[in-house]
Amino acid sequence: MSSIMEQAAKGVTPLIAETAKREGISEEFVRNGVASGRIVIPNNPIHGPVPCAVGDGMRIKVNVNIGTSRDMPLLDTELEKLSVALKYGADSVMDLSTGGDIDKIRRTIISKCGVIVGTVPIYQTGLTAARKNAVVDMTEDDLFNGFEMHAKDGVDFMTVHCGITKESVDWLKNSHRMTDVVSRGGSFLTAWILHNGRENPLYENFDYLLELAKKYEITLSLGDGFRPGCIHDATDGAQLAELMTLGRLVKRCRKAGVQSMVEGPGHVPLDMVPANMHLEKQLCHGAPFYVLGPLVTDIAPGYDHIVGAIGGAVAAQNGADFLCYLTPAEHLSLPDVDDVKEGLIASKIAAHVGDLCRRRDTELDDRMATARRALDWEKMFSIALDPDKARKYRERGCTEKEEGCSMCGDVCAIKIVDRYLEKK
Amino acid sequence: MSSIMEQAAKGVTPLIAETAKREGISEEFVRNGVASGRIVIPNNPIHGPVPCAVGDGMRIKVNVNIGTSRDMPLLDTELEKLSVALKYGADSVMDLSTGGDIDKIRRTIISKCGVIVGTVPIYQTGLTAARKNAVVDMTEDDLFNGFEMHAKDGVDFMTVHCGITKESVDWLKNSHRMTDVVSRGGSFLTAWILHNGRENPLYENFDYLLELAKKYEITLSLGDGFRPGCIHDATDGAQLAELMTLGRLVKRCRKAGVQSMVEGPGHVPLDMVPANMHLEKQLCHGAPFYVLGPLVTDIAPGYDHIVGAIGGAVAAQNGADFLCYLTPAEHLSLPDVDDVKEGLIASKIAAHVGDLCRRRDTELDDRMATARRALDWEKMFSIALDPDKARKYRERGCTEKEEGCSMCGDVCAIKIVDRYLEKK
Repeated sequence: MSSIMEQAAKGVTPLIAETAKREGISEEFVRNGVASGRIVIPNNPIHGPVPCAVGDGMRIKVNVNIGTSRDMPLLDTELEKLSVALKYGADSVMDLSTGGDIDKIRRTIISKCGVIVGTVPIYQTGLTAARKNAVVDMTEDDLFNGFEMHAKDGVDFMTVHCGITKESVDWLKNSHRMTDVVSRGGSFLTAWILHNGRENPLYENFDYLLELAKKYEITLSLGDGFRPGCIHDATDGAQLAELMTLGRLVKRCRKAGVQSMVEGPGHVPLDMVPANMHLEKQLCHGAPFYVLGPLVTDIAPGYDHIVGAIGGAVAAQNGADFLCYLTPAEHLSLPDVDDVKEGLIASKIAAHVGDLCRRRDTELDDRMATARRALDWEKMFSIALDPDKARKYRERGCTEKEEGCSMCGDVCAIKIVDRYLEKK
Repeated sequence: MSSIMEQAAKGVTPLIAETAKREGISEEFVRNGVASGRIVIPNNPIHGPVPCAVGDGMRIKVNVNIGTSRDMPLLDTELEKLSVALKYGADSVMDLSTGGDIDKIRRTIISKCGVIVGTVPIYQTGLTAARKNAVVDMTEDDLFNGFEMHAKDGVDFMTVHCGITKESVDWLKNSHRMTDVVSRGGSFLTAWILHNGRENPLYENFDYLLELAKKYEITLSLGDGFRPGCIHDATDGAQLAELMTLGRLVKRCRKAGVQSMVEGPGHVPLDMVPANMHLEKQLCHGAPFYVLGPLVTDIAPGYDHIVGAIGGAVAAQNGADFLCYLTPAEHLSLPDVDDVKEGLIASKIAAHVGDLCRRRDTELDDRMATARRALDWEKMFSIALDPDKARKYRERGCTEKEEGCSMCGDVCAIKIVDRYLEKK
């Protein structure tokens, strides 16, 4: 059977038509983007239809990471997070579970998730080996079998760290990095290459990975195992060597009819964010860019959702297509349900701010402005990203019920000017 | 007696020496900046020394607004907010009280505040008139007497909306704004001009304002009464007409030896933020720019501290010198103590992100990176903007005490790579 990408080369499919409708953009634009690889629609048929286009000209999408760890292994907690993610408009959910019954957790999440699901299969493969003895004992078969198992469960896209190679590890060894490797998948493969003295199987046998991806319609998310882990390490040789490799792999994906996107940093000072976006678009031939953050300072643990929203908005303005959310718990612990909500809203803000720059899609903002001008609080709440929180704040302070709020009370600018201004 | 600005023209004063030391920059650089007006050190001698330089080449500063309203009039609450503001590193505090015993509240805040204090005296003048009958009944004497009273209390800088003139009101009348006027001071003077058919006394008798400012060493913060109140209204004729007037007034301040800065937007889409910064620097002759936000979308009430941090970081990167914080309560109610803390930290992040771009001042970030690499949690907490919150998150999830955290548990990237990587 031909893949989503191959079908797009021939004409508009129902999946393309549906995503175009959701974007408010022409079917031909989406079709052309998918056929050329500048747009992806990650959708494993086993999962059922999850029509959502990511890439050139599409609205910026937001991913929510959930999943257990050894210290927080409960499925129910993760399902609560999933439900909050869906309620507040996540476009995609990644299950990064590393604790409890990982297979069961993944399958349950896929069955309950009406949006794109992603995973990083090497987490499971690596920790299985690590808990037996050491992560460097992973075999080539383990790696590909892990990928295929997730594919059979209906995962729509998977992160694969194919750009961690002997060559990029050499860049790492010669680097002046402060935090070497902060990607878990990246660390597994770096250790593996260093210990075994062999090339990364996901790179060496990339054709086999493409075969599997094609067979199951998996969108490859080419992982950034050497993404910088602090401001100091941003945009260095190790990062760029990997990115350049990923650019070459993007071409091979396209030739094989496999959808691909590229993952990006990480910790980057704000003024380097645009360059990072342009580099990816150029070196990776316009492939959709999926960024983690970027985090524009290192000194605000507990507030990295805000740090990531700053970087994410500027990234989105400059070409990023897909934002991985960050929660207040980042760098400190697994997020709880409240953290998931806070992180998602912060990323939704960043994505929308990017959309305002790239698509001039101001309808919602204009409706909010009109509601504010009319002091129509119910209308404001209905447009707000988080109506419940907005309502709670408004109701908190008002001792005298009236149109204004407790901020200005009786000296409300809008009401004062309304009384005297006649517009021409 | 000669003013701070006039003294700076002659040589380095103790105030300049102290601010230069705090900035880690040469005394001559600060002296020259203050003498030329590109840097201000707002410091009313009645308040006692509050050495803090704002402007060209200085670290980005953050202001916290506190103050009562009719619905929330308690002094004690405001003193709690003040104490949180000082604990988490506010560079300046504005008392915007409009409820309760306004004079007593202001005087108490000044007496307890070891950093710069600002006010907007027209709030008190206007609401006194409004509560008697109507805001448009304010007299010219009321306006100047209000200013002088605050000066005598020791306020360091005051917002004065001198750019609301017959001409800029005409721009407003002819505008296609959705939210006309959202500045309270701006609304008072717009209503006053429209009702009385006369010119704004603060503009018409600007020389008298300069006399008072000189006498009491008040830094004038030239207010943006026509700042845009929604994305739709950004960077329009009304806003620019006012800004151009302020630029002319900056020159008159400098000639009179009075320190001045300029206030700025407001609601601005992210891609217009740099232009807004460049316009102010150009039209206002390099005067320090004090921005409210900018807010880069309208649709996130309850999260405007995040919206403002995005705009603030990009503003700071592009020339803003002074960020007025926004809290989660913005547009909805007066902030409570927790909101003040959340808003301040968000703005501190934005300011630091701007500093990373403008001064390459990466020492703190590098120290955090080193602590992270060493999994030295106590060191990380000590560098964090909010050590308590970071500690709480870290401790929350760990069921097995060890170096890592509950996010990765036993599959910690740093620990895995440490075991195999030897750097050259």
